[in-house]
Amino acid sequence: MSKQAKIRIGMIGGGAGAFIGAVHRHAYGLDGDFELVCGAFSRDAANNLQTGESLGLDNERIYASWQQMLEQEAKLPKSVQMQAVVIVTPNHLHVPVSVAAIEAGFHVFCEKPAAVSLAEAQALADVLEKSDRLYGLAHTYLGYPLVWQARHMVQEGLLGSIRKVYVEYPQGWLSQEEELHNKQASWRTDPNLAGGSGCMGDIGTHAFGLAEFVLTDRITELCAELKTHVDGRRLDDDGAALIRTGKGASGVLLASQVCAGEENALKIRVYGEKGGLEWRQMEPNSLIHSPAGEPFRVLRAGLGQPGLCQDALARCRTPGGHPEGYLEAMANLYTDFARAVRSKQSGKAEGVPGIGSGLRGMAFIDAMLASSNSNEKWHKVADTRCVSKA
Amino acid sequence: MSKQAKIRIGMIGGGAGAFIGAVHRHAYGLDGDFELVCGAFSRDAANNLQTGESLGLDNERIYASWQQMLEQEAKLPKSVQMQAVVIVTPNHLHVPVSVAAIEAGFHVFCEKPAAVSLAEAQALADVLEKSDRLYGLAHTYLGYPLVWQARHMVQEGLLGSIRKVYVEYPQGWLSQEEELHNKQASWRTDPNLAGGSGCMGDIGTHAFGLAEFVLTDRITELCAELKTHVDGRRLDDDGAALIRTGKGASGVLLASQVCAGEENALKIRVYGEKGGLEWRQMEPNSLIHSPAGEPFRVLRAGLGQPGLCQDALARCRTPGGHPEGYLEAMANLYTDFARAVRSKQSGKAEGVPGIGSGLRGMAFIDAMLASSNSNEKWHKVADTRCVSKA
Amino acid sequence: MSKQAKIRIGMIGGGAGAFIGAVHRHAYGLDGDFELVCGAFSRDAANNLQTGESLGLDNERIYASWQQMLEQEAKLPKSVQMQAVVIVTPNHLHVPVSVAAIEAGFHVFCEKPAAVSLAEAQALADVLEKSDRLYGLAHTYLGYPLVWQARHMVQEGLLGSIRKVYVEYPQGWLSQEEELHNKQASWRTDPNLAGGSGCMGDIGTHAFGLAEFVLTDRITELCAELKTHVDGRRLDDDGAALIRTGKGASGVLLASQVCAGEENALKIRVYGEKGGLEWRQMEPNSLIHSPAGEPFRVLRAGLGQPGLCQDALARCRTPGGHPEGYLEAMANLYTDFARAVRSKQSGKAEGVPGIGSGLRGMAFIDAMLASSNSNEKWHKVADTRCVSKA
Amino acid sequence: MSKQAKIRIGMIGGGAGAFIGAVHRHAYGLDGDFELVCGAFSRDAANNLQTGESLGLDNERIYASWQQMLEQEAKLPKSVQMQAVVIVTPNHLHVPVSVAAIEAGFHVFCEKPAAVSLAEAQALADVLEKSDRLYGLAHTYLGYPLVWQARHMVQEGLLGSIRKVYVEYPQGWLSQEEELHNKQASWRTDPNLAGGSGCMGDIGTHAFGLAEFVLTDRITELCAELKTHVDGRRLDDDGAALIRTGKGASGVLLASQVCAGEENALKIRVYGEKGGLEWRQMEPNSLIHSPAGEPFRVLRAGLGQPGLCQDALARCRTPGGHPEGYLEAMANLYTDFARAVRSKQSGKAEGVPGIGSGLRGMAFIDAMLASSNSNEKWHKVADTRCVSKA
Repeated sequence: MSKQAKIRIGMIGGGAGAFIGAVHRHAYGLDGDFELVCGAFSRDAANNLQTGESLGLDNERIYASWQQMLEQEAKLPKSVQMQAVVIVTPNHLHVPVSVAAIEAGFHVFCEKPAAVSLAEAQALADVLEKSDRLYGLAHTYLGYPLVWQARHMVQEGLLGSIRKVYVEYPQGWLSQEEELHNKQASWRTDPNLAGGSGCMGDIGTHAFGLAEFVLTDRITELCAELKTHVDGRRLDDDGAALIRTGKGASGVLLASQVCAGEENALKIRVYGEKGGLEWRQMEPNSLIHSPAGEPFRVLRAGLGQPGLCQDALARCRTPGGHPEGYLEAMANLYTDFARAVRSKQSGKAEGVPGIGSGLRGMAFIDAMLASSNSNEKWHKVADTRCVSKA
Repeated sequence: MSKQAKIRIGMIGGGAGAFIGAVHRHAYGLDGDFELVCGAFSRDAANNLQTGESLGLDNERIYASWQQMLEQEAKLPKSVQMQAVVIVTPNHLHVPVSVAAIEAGFHVFCEKPAAVSLAEAQALADVLEKSDRLYGLAHTYLGYPLVWQARHMVQEGLLGSIRKVYVEYPQGWLSQEEELHNKQASWRTDPNLAGGSGCMGDIGTHAFGLAEFVLTDRITELCAELKTHVDGRRLDDDGAALIRTGKGASGVLLASQVCAGEENALKIRVYGEKGGLEWRQMEPNSLIHSPAGEPFRVLRAGLGQPGLCQDALARCRTPGGHPEGYLEAMANLYTDFARAVRSKQSGKAEGVPGIGSGLRGMAFIDAMLASSNSNEKWHKVADTRCVSKA
Repeated sequence: MSKQAKIRIGMIGGGAGAFIGAVHRHAYGLDGDFELVCGAFSRDAANNLQTGESLGLDNERIYASWQQMLEQEAKLPKSVQMQAVVIVTPNHLHVPVSVAAIEAGFHVFCEKPAAVSLAEAQALADVLEKSDRLYGLAHTYLGYPLVWQARHMVQEGLLGSIRKVYVEYPQGWLSQEEELHNKQASWRTDPNLAGGSGCMGDIGTHAFGLAEFVLTDRITELCAELKTHVDGRRLDDDGAALIRTGKGASGVLLASQVCAGEENALKIRVYGEKGGLEWRQMEPNSLIHSPAGEPFRVLRAGLGQPGLCQDALARCRTPGGHPEGYLEAMANLYTDFARAVRSKQSGKAEGVPGIGSGLRGMAFIDAMLASSNSNEKWHKVADTRCVSKA
Repeated sequence: MSKQAKIRIGMIGGGAGAFIGAVHRHAYGLDGDFELVCGAFSRDAANNLQTGESLGLDNERIYASWQQMLEQEAKLPKSVQMQAVVIVTPNHLHVPVSVAAIEAGFHVFCEKPAAVSLAEAQALADVLEKSDRLYGLAHTYLGYPLVWQARHMVQEGLLGSIRKVYVEYPQGWLSQEEELHNKQASWRTDPNLAGGSGCMGDIGTHAFGLAEFVLTDRITELCAELKTHVDGRRLDDDGAALIRTGKGASGVLLASQVCAGEENALKIRVYGEKGGLEWRQMEPNSLIHSPAGEPFRVLRAGLGQPGLCQDALARCRTPGGHPEGYLEAMANLYTDFARAVRSKQSGKAEGVPGIGSGLRGMAFIDAMLASSNSNEKWHKVADTRCVSKA
């Protein structure tokens, strides 16, 4: 064995004041596989420079724009240039930057959603199909060990045939007109930056993606109502749907940003003929398993914990009782992405949601918007071409 | 003051092997306001006799049929005859017995649902309107102190204008074909005994009634899907609906008896502009209040507990930390019913759900069935005439 | 079979304003086995009369004193006179009334503690030994189904040899000088009425009794510190002890009435070589079992619940998810007491704590007081003669 | 502003198979302030090399011994050599390495405990007093935001004068003779490597340090019993103590590694005249505050969360509901340590436990051992000279 070099990354977006950029930096730092070598953090030159310097970058690799960054980095020697781009801009730039980066020869790790429309996501999928570059999508919640455990238990048939799925994602932070003074709220409620949906695009897609991941099944039809509760807000801030899956389960999906008092309460419950499962993002290290006719049991995350599958154990860093959380979940995606880069996987990084997940998310948003605007009861969710393994 | 006599009651239904009859006996015994003086517990003569004797009844007041009981008791001296009938039969007898009892001059305390159809409930309502007899409906969950507290806080405007309501009632006990060997399951899944709906009639009505009670608002429209998951079962065992209320709130109602591993997990969450509330039947002595912009707080049931309204305090028997539960909740209904009898209230017993609640429940079931069978998105819930105070 | 008559009881103490008298009345009413036929509720004549009348008693059986009651009732025909006395006076009367009642031929069901000193309890034990009358002691917490389940699991060896026991009982209601205006607090802090200990007598004995019951073992040695935190208070309001048991376990016992904000948080944890158990009185329907090397599981109270022993199931009235609580726990003691009366058991009512438990409690209080006043580390808990089965 | 360089660190200990070395690497990676430049990870040459290479080190800076590392690094140019040493060896090397590193001019960040005896810790303290080098001690749990919040609330007097403190740390992982096959267990139970105490040194010190930190008070006296439950084990694996503090509070401290089924359940409860606080390490993002006479409230960790003090907010990276855990807590210590290095603080790094905490821990272990071996009731905890701010 010889020295294992860090993977060189550049970041686009994530200047001071942005939420998710810092999250990505914590996450990729956690396991030590990455080294930030360049960035284009903000269109505001001062913010851009300050962010880059605070992150230890040399001035010549703090770029004024993402276009300049892709162009200049491509000219550097292979052993120096960045290997992958981390995209943490508002949504409308996700596809343009991703496509340009892939075409310039860089891997891409992109904050979700993949795109602002299904068509745009499909265009990106087409580009990826012709490329050997890796594309990872930060569906952070799919990095939690016990989400993998839940999926494993469903796949193994421990619950029997699945009948019901209830997935919910209530938040409260947009209960008031937060967009007037909060940058995060502002772009998330602007259709030009966020896409056609607010709440469903921002968090509904997480609920949807979590359900499809755990079930290894597709939500094929839904009946939705979206709402906008705050005067002057331009996108939905709340909604719910009855849902049906390809394998015959049914249930409810809800997502809301006006549940005053709720923090980030993503939760999924799945019930089959033989038992049920419940997982809550805010207490992510417990997975409740209720086998029919037995006391319920609680599987706990952690190294060496009893009852966990290999995929779950591989995503733990500490023994049980040393809580790991949101940043560790995202770090798990980065670590799998690093492995994919190093082992020269192509297209889809094993363990990391990819464009397949992105397409599903876009199809979901489209179906929610269409259903909400219609008097017909059921709407199909488009049957997107490629299926994400994760 | 002189000696306070107990209220003399007779019970119809509730022979050995029935669940809810025993519950009623525990509940009315708890506060000592009632004395069982007669009964017609079962069409099975041996069961009937044995039940009556085990309850300390003299043989001559253990009647072979409810008709005989009403007839014979009516002939006894006023100071001896029963004053009220407790009805704990399968659903299809609720109205026939109620009507006969009221017409024979007795008060009625009836297990829910009030009827097996809206028309039948309306007929009973018509009878009640012309009578001065009391009619109480055992919507047990409306006897919990913190349900009253939640309603109080909504009414006082502590949450601001209500935007969202999520009410759910998952159970798991009918995950398998329980009706083959379980008497409770058997009649509940027989349309001739239970009415047109299984799960929605049995527990959906509880969820619905709880939501309307807490909100002091009506669910006016819904979009539902009902399901039957077990082969050969004749009624729905599961379902969910998007709902809208008269005052402009929206949300989700779900009820299921095939959520394997769930016990009796009735839960309501309400969110307004200024905060949220959450109450769970299985931990009934806590009410979570999340005022926007403050740490959430937990109101606790119990004598003298801080923050409770008078209606909540009046429904507690012990100081905080001495858990009261389901039987105490039903006892609270009986205690209010006793007060109504003693104070010669008429028609509606203060604090006890009445025929108004019964009508609402029937209208709900009708709307759920109609919606589930339709491709139209929204169905109106019938605007029943009389509004239950509770 | 013939009509099952109710057991006729008289109550001593429990006038308006008392806490525990009402609790007993709720509890014995719950299962319908008892009928109150007389009482001497208060030395205050008006209170006495009013209490009796509100409970439906005839004036001639509302007695001015407990002495009068015993004397008069003894003269009534056997089929009319009370069969058992319920004692809910302050502590100092427990033994005098118990002895007099037993000698007058009545069964006794007494609120705990059994006595105000070990010697006094021993005197009562001597009386009982020569009598065929039943004596039950209201160690309410020993009526909970899952306490029996915990004991069963320890006895069955599911935890292996027991190493550790932690039992705690924090309350907060005496954090301030409550005795100035609260009758409950007043007599509990008066050595003439409560005995030599405040907190340890009132609630420490519950913790102690729970530990010995679950372990089926005796606490043989302890090292304690008692404290009085409120100026002017005459008895301890707080304390803790290191403890050792006869079978070689060790641990901690704590009880306090100055843990501001705590309600009634009795809790026990037991750990053996093969696993642990945890039970909390404030969530009494769950028992956590942690078998070493497996996910922990939660046993739940309720009819038909999986994993419960017969003794636990027999103490449930409703299916899982219909919470039963404190009053039901005490009702379980009354129901076992009724069975003992009817089946003419003598001395010790099966399932009900008796004088053995009473002696243990007194020995515990003595040891705590002695240890707290000493500079020696370990004190023996007296090895009381008779062992309570429950 | 100019580019902010990372702080160059070397690691001693932490080869493959060690637990805590990896934890430190995750923790210092999280906020991106550090760069590992060298290491001496294991006396096993292969393990040492492999660990170093997997961490991206050049071979010439993977040293065969810690002595060699200090010597060689000291010879490198200031701009290249490591600035600080991270010590993650077994306990017996903590002081020898710390002293040598400080004398060689390096800052030290050391895993706890500081030493294997009070005398050894004092010797280190003497060295530090004469040096301007920084010394940080990884009392990880003192990095949690809500631990700072709890301390703040006590300091602000929100609980009034403190009466009671209960701190406990039950684990179950040493319930069996784990040391036969588990390297972590092996050295922790070897007096030559771990020091004179097993459980108290390993986790009791955490409980002790947490209590003194939250209370801003000293535990001055204790009465302890230590136990060894597993045959052949050479150090205590369990124990408890009654405790008294300098300001007059009292309570209980317990720590055990044989509570089968427990993971890592460090918990503290504090009660004052006006209310109580409870914090649990396994649910670290909630702090329960029970003000007397009000419903209890739950303070929640997270950026911008209501009710948090500045010290707590500064230790959060994400908004409420995005759980942060153990690695983030340790990262908080590293981040404060980085700030101290950059701002040229000396001796004590603000926000990071230092030798003062180390001395307290040693004094605690000494007192626990002495008390456990004595028949006298109370033992003093040595009044160590310097007080840690944190």
